Amino acid sequence: MSDLYTFENEQYRKTYWHTCSHVLAQAVKRLWPETKLAIGPSIDNGFYYDLDAKETFTPEDLEKIEAEMRKICKEKLKLERFELPREEAVKFMEEKGEPYKVELIRDLPEDAVISFYKQGDFTDLCAGPHLDSTGRIKGNAIKLTACNAAYWRGDSSRKQLQRIYGVAFPKKEELDEYLRQQEEALKRDHNKIGRELEYFTTVDVIGQGLPILLPKGARTIQTLQRWVEDEEQKRGYLLTKTPYMAKRELYKISGHWDHYLDGMFVLGDPDDYTKECFALRPMTCPFQYQVFLNRGRSYRDLPMRLGETSTLFRNEDSGEMHGLIRVRQFTISEGHLVLRPEQLEEEFKGCLDLAKYCLGTVGLLDKCTFRFSQWDPANPNNKYEGTAEQWDEAQRVMGQILDDLDVHYTVGIDEAAFYGPKLDIQYKNVFGKEDTLVTIQIDMLLAKQFGMEYVDADGQKKIPYIIHRTSLGCYERTLAYLLEEYAGALPTWMAPEQVRILPITDRAAEYSVKLQKELSEQGFRVEVDERNEKIGKKIREAQLEKVPYMLVVGDKEVENGEVAVRHRAEGDLGVMSLPKFAALLKNVVDTKAKK
Amino acid sequence: MSDLYTFENEQYRKTYWHTCSHVLAQAVKRLWPETKLAIGPSIDNGFYYDLDAKETFTPEDLEKIEAEMRKICKEKLKLERFELPREEAVKFMEEKGEPYKVELIRDLPEDAVISFYKQGDFTDLCAGPHLDSTGRIKGNAIKLTACNAAYWRGDSSRKQLQRIYGVAFPKKEELDEYLRQQEEALKRDHNKIGRELEYFTTVDVIGQGLPILLPKGARTIQTLQRWVEDEEQKRGYLLTKTPYMAKRELYKISGHWDHYLDGMFVLGDPDDYTKECFALRPMTCPFQYQVFLNRGRSYRDLPMRLGETSTLFRNEDSGEMHGLIRVRQFTISEGHLVLRPEQLEEEFKGCLDLAKYCLGTVGLLDKCTFRFSQWDPANPNNKYEGTAEQWDEAQRVMGQILDDLDVHYTVGIDEAAFYGPKLDIQYKNVFGKEDTLVTIQIDMLLAKQFGMEYVDADGQKKIPYIIHRTSLGCYERTLAYLLEEYAGALPTWMAPEQVRILPITDRAAEYSVKLQKELSEQGFRVEVDERNEKIGKKIREAQLEKVPYMLVVGDKEVENGEVAVRHRAEGDLGVMSLPKFAALLKNVVDTKAKK
Repeated sequence: MSDLYTFENEQYRKTYWHTCSHVLAQAVKRLWPETKLAIGPSIDNGFYYDLDAKETFTPEDLEKIEAEMRKICKEKLKLERFELPREEAVKFMEEKGEPYKVELIRDLPEDAVISFYKQGDFTDLCAGPHLDSTGRIKGNAIKLTACNAAYWRGDSSRKQLQRIYGVAFPKKEELDEYLRQQEEALKRDHNKIGRELEYFTTVDVIGQGLPILLPKGARTIQTLQRWVEDEEQKRGYLLTKTPYMAKRELYKISGHWDHYLDGMFVLGDPDDYTKECFALRPMTCPFQYQVFLNRGRSYRDLPMRLGETSTLFRNEDSGEMHGLIRVRQFTISEGHLVLRPEQLEEEFKGCLDLAKYCLGTVGLLDKCTFRFSQWDPANPNNKYEGTAEQWDEAQRVMGQILDDLDVHYTVGIDEAAFYGPKLDIQYKNVFGKEDTLVTIQIDMLLAKQFGMEYVDADGQKKIPYIIHRTSLGCYERTLAYLLEEYAGALPTWMAPEQVRILPITDRAAEYSVKLQKELSEQGFRVEVDERNEKIGKKIREAQLEKVPYMLVVGDKEVENGEVAVRHRAEGDLGVMSLPKFAALLKNVVDTKAKK
Repeated sequence: MSDLYTFENEQYRKTYWHTCSHVLAQAVKRLWPETKLAIGPSIDNGFYYDLDAKETFTPEDLEKIEAEMRKICKEKLKLERFELPREEAVKFMEEKGEPYKVELIRDLPEDAVISFYKQGDFTDLCAGPHLDSTGRIKGNAIKLTACNAAYWRGDSSRKQLQRIYGVAFPKKEELDEYLRQQEEALKRDHNKIGRELEYFTTVDVIGQGLPILLPKGARTIQTLQRWVEDEEQKRGYLLTKTPYMAKRELYKISGHWDHYLDGMFVLGDPDDYTKECFALRPMTCPFQYQVFLNRGRSYRDLPMRLGETSTLFRNEDSGEMHGLIRVRQFTISEGHLVLRPEQLEEEFKGCLDLAKYCLGTVGLLDKCTFRFSQWDPANPNNKYEGTAEQWDEAQRVMGQILDDLDVHYTVGIDEAAFYGPKLDIQYKNVFGKEDTLVTIQIDMLLAKQFGMEYVDADGQKKIPYIIHRTSLGCYERTLAYLLEEYAGALPTWMAPEQVRILPITDRAAEYSVKLQKELSEQGFRVEVDERNEKIGKKIREAQLEKVPYMLVVGDKEVENGEVAVRHRAEGDLGVMSLPKFAALLKNVVDTKAKK
């Protein structure tokens, strides 16, 4: 997606969009002068402005605003920056009748520089930077894309405002291309097609961020999980199954209580120490360590590779939830490798290889990038465990390994786990939004906190290193990306329904059930469309439902003991015997072909 | 186990043991007169008495008490019942210095008959009934088996007492046989061997009732779950994966909020309606119904058989927790069948057949009994949903089906689910303790509450019936019973380690790794004991760890490309080629042989 942006420099792009947001606000103020301004930043995909207006903006209003914005661009207004002392700044904004701006100024730190940007008849409180003139903006390449509700400062107890979203490009053709791609992306949006194809749903009485996997979603995730579990077993992992909750005491040792409590679901009063208090786990680490701790360990037990299809819980706001991507409960192939320090590089390599194998097999690897996520040495809010020396050492070792393995990465400051640096495998979805899919982390701290040790070959007790890692990422999120990547037409091996048999006649219907049984016994997922409908309709519906293989069966096929095979993308594959089709299907499934 | 009791009449047996508890208390009072008496009932397996004594009773003390009990039996003291008015009863017990008895009397309902039983120098507050003389008890067939701590009235904020357990039989030989069987049972106790064989563990910092499945336990449960999921798929089930928590609102509709809240883990304040409140699910029903509700349904969609490997949570006291049998979190093959009323019998039959197949295959069916669990028409504490008419109808239909299917059952009053009657498949563990393993329930109430309906062939909207069912029971509990049933030597198909290769020489060690790889690729679970130890020791340890097959490999086997096969129970099976052994193993695994 990044090719879409011709502003190659992110800084410039953001500045451009930021100035667009001022032009947007100026246009609104010209049209509806009584509107109060809240905030208007640039974002990853354009800009927005939050407004407190009497009217609810209609699509027609947005067009009117766009026209006014084009006018402002043509006016080539110069943007001028000036500063004011706090009280003068407050007075200035009070006189302009902008209570939100007044509140923002009052909340600034005492020593903050308070700056404004002025363009013609419009002035906004703003830190900048900005373009030097509204004439730099291409008026006919601006598009206001949506208008949603948004709370002032994201606080649902405060006033509800209207947020107008927009996007803009230096050329009209670039805008058109962007809008075309967005339209295309919408068609692939998992939150739309995943529901339409009945992979998942959400319901109000259960809650947002708690998706219900319908039979199709459940079957695909079962297929993926079994495959990953089996692959891990082949690679010497030991399977574990640890509980989803634990007493407060466990999280005190692990550091989650101090560094992660806000993100956890707590059962009971966290501050009442007269009673047992449980919390749902946000990560598997401290649970899986108990497996290592179950008895004394020696160097012979290492590396100990522990894997689990693990369900985790994160307490996030309802408003943050999105389809299968932002959820409160999710399941992940989480694992921990307990190691002698000298095994670190080899095992890290193994983890990276497994992740690449998994992502490559499902077809997501090509769009992935790597991020070396480090702590923030400024360490705000005491967010990280350990000393600067420990972090420097862990990051030095990890940097060395990444270089040895020739991993090309960007650096993410303040993106580390609280206990160590990470290699994050990042994925951009169809809308260009980036999220972490897989992570491999080096941890030189937690083993000591849990009293984990092993007797080395020299008879000395030593503290192991730990790698935290996932191999495919959270299954819900992975399913979302797969639905988007394949526009719902999942590869046959992971498709919930692999074959649909479409009988043309009653006689063929009976034969179809027999075929279904035979193929099912070979482990394929097969349905029969027994409805009394025209074959054209049956095929059309199977296509729409993205079933990989359709077997059309008429009287002739019954007589000859054959099937007419159709693939959703390749079309007609001809008439063949059932064994021949089964062999073809087996090959497609066994090789995990991307069709 | 029930053959052990020669007292065939349960009523008589309980009376016998109850009188034993009085004899126990009398003996203690004779030896330590200052001891205060709490309560002393008969229980499933004998009797106990809770005592407030200065001394902590030692095993020697228990022997002393036993001797005194024998004496009391020989004294043939007559038991005499008498009644007293409340205030006289209080005064009587105050004079005897029994504060616990005074508290018990004061807590009796106002109109209660207050009775006592006197035998010689001893009188106890007691509702009876009792044997007519201590001479009826066989003195040398009494055994005091344990002395534990117990809280007065089970309340940990009250005084801690000592509970002396005992058992008694009419004949010395019966006692001996019972004790021998108990000793045998202890050897099979899953809570002992399951930990020793490293199937599971529990740790304090996580909490009681939250077992950690170690790699062996996790692997066996994975095997069982995949097998059940696949079997259900074959039988036309649709797999689902629904969230583990939901908002309060869901449980309000289902009735769990009114009837089950005490057993649930609530996240947040259940009484604060200004905030979202979530609770972990104690059952899957209301979640799985959402799958049915995802779109309009017609009679063609029915029966809809929904299955899920579902994790559930029950908020129970730490003190109640026991190994893998009484836990706070467990996973179960839970399913719901949504039906047209006329499909009820056929589908019930299908559920019963599946449960019998599953229990039979794992080897637990022979020890199972059936219980028709009904509501209590007196309906105390408003425990059940629905009207008497609805319950009568549901129970009539279920009784009819059970008769049609020729199920031999006992009736359990007040054992129903709050929404309907159940067929419970009951299992007695090695200690004779009975629990429910599998349940099939008929529910004519909840579909209406959730607004579930379907369009029937006649075009009318109708409300479906629902069957709630499990097919193997909670996996943790099932694993416990399997460990006890097989004394840790799980059948090969579900054994976590199926084959251990035992090389005798260094050369054989290399060959062994090759063998391991070959067998693993065929899907078997194989380890190599590469340690530099004598072959005898390796075999002994593999036997102790209950590994089904051992392959002993020396230089001769390497030369001939063969393996010397040994089975843990059948012993030496001779030398054979690897393909021959693999075929033998495949047959044992595929047929799910009980060896």
